[in-house]
Amino acid sequence: MHVIVDLCVVPLGVGVSVGEHVAACQRVIEASGLEYRMHAYGTNIEGPWDDVMAVVKACHQRVHEMGAPRITTTLKVGTRTDREQHMDDKVASVERHLQSP
Amino acid sequence: MHVIVDLCVVPLGVGVSVGEHVAACQRVIEASGLEYRMHAYGTNIEGPWDDVMAVVKACHQRVHEMGAPRITTTLKVGTRTDREQHMDDKVASVERHLQSP
Amino acid sequence: MHVIVDLCVVPLGVGVSVGEHVAACQRVIEASGLEYRMHAYGTNIEGPWDDVMAVVKACHQRVHEMGAPRITTTLKVGTRTDREQHMDDKVASVERHLQSP
Amino acid sequence: MHVIVDLCVVPLGVGVSVGEHVAACQRVIEASGLEYRMHAYGTNIEGPWDDVMAVVKACHQRVHEMGAPRITTTLKVGTRTDREQHMDDKVASVERHLQSP
Repeated sequence: MHVIVDLCVVPLGVGVSVGEHVAACQRVIEASGLEYRMHAYGTNIEGPWDDVMAVVKACHQRVHEMGAPRITTTLKVGTRTDREQHMDDKVASVERHLQSP
Repeated sequence: MHVIVDLCVVPLGVGVSVGEHVAACQRVIEASGLEYRMHAYGTNIEGPWDDVMAVVKACHQRVHEMGAPRITTTLKVGTRTDREQHMDDKVASVERHLQSP
Repeated sequence: MHVIVDLCVVPLGVGVSVGEHVAACQRVIEASGLEYRMHAYGTNIEGPWDDVMAVVKACHQRVHEMGAPRITTTLKVGTRTDREQHMDDKVASVERHLQSP
Repeated sequence: MHVIVDLCVVPLGVGVSVGEHVAACQRVIEASGLEYRMHAYGTNIEGPWDDVMAVVKACHQRVHEMGAPRITTTLKVGTRTDREQHMDDKVASVERHLQSP
């Protein structure tokens, strides 16, 4: 089962700046070899369900190891069985509609 | 790693009523033996990370088997390492604060 | 436009315990007179769109006033035009499906 | 109160393809004059709270007008009072951390 997720990991108890923790998650995601795109409020990742979810778990583990005592994550999870669809296809589909009258 | 999640599975391409699909997810959650509480916009589930995430995957699989070609899920995921906390503890903590002046 | 939301306000920069801030939001919601139900990972609120969204804004304002320098909120927002539906109807619909064979 | 949101509008009861409805939301957002960035699982928008929330409401109204009987939206909402921060600042902050050893 192929999945596209939007991952937003929020560490609590580490102060107001969380850039360091988010960067650590980016390194975990990068190391996984999965396709991903960071945006201003999360990161889109795609791939086989188990691989993507292993990355989400590894992010929580990494951020706890860095000293964050608590984490709250918001995750959107999209699957479809009618056809294969990748992150760039979703953006392209909307842009196609935007260009038609 | 103990986790408390809030799971909201939304099937697309099955019409406007999704109660049947949500009920199927409830049966998957119930069968897992994990603690859970349904509310009007999702279901809280808690337990070991891998068990809870296996249930989320099983919900997607079940809803696809029922004929939904596409699913978008919103999942909140909470972990903490400073102390053990259960769903009822979170509600009780807020209620304690509400009762103090 | 009637709306049912699921609101989860997360203050950052105030330490690991956020029960006091969540309780303050509950007081803001209670004072609004809108229907609501708290659960372990947020609060369902329903009513006219503008009234519910005014409460969400008032929660951010209140939590900032309490000293939280940063807030990240996750909000699910449901509207429908085919029929009137309330929070308890959603739960009842799922329970009806659970009781049929 | 300045806000950065991540908006993901999901129409139900319109079939499996929602690109047309998402494109209509993009037009609503574009017409608002607010800063925004689309990604594969939503759109980041920033600006004054009331302006951004008016756009979210206008998206629901527009998608209902197009015939969708039901909508479920997931919205992340970030505010901070300690300093001004824009979408590009958040991405730049993470990238700075990624470049340091």
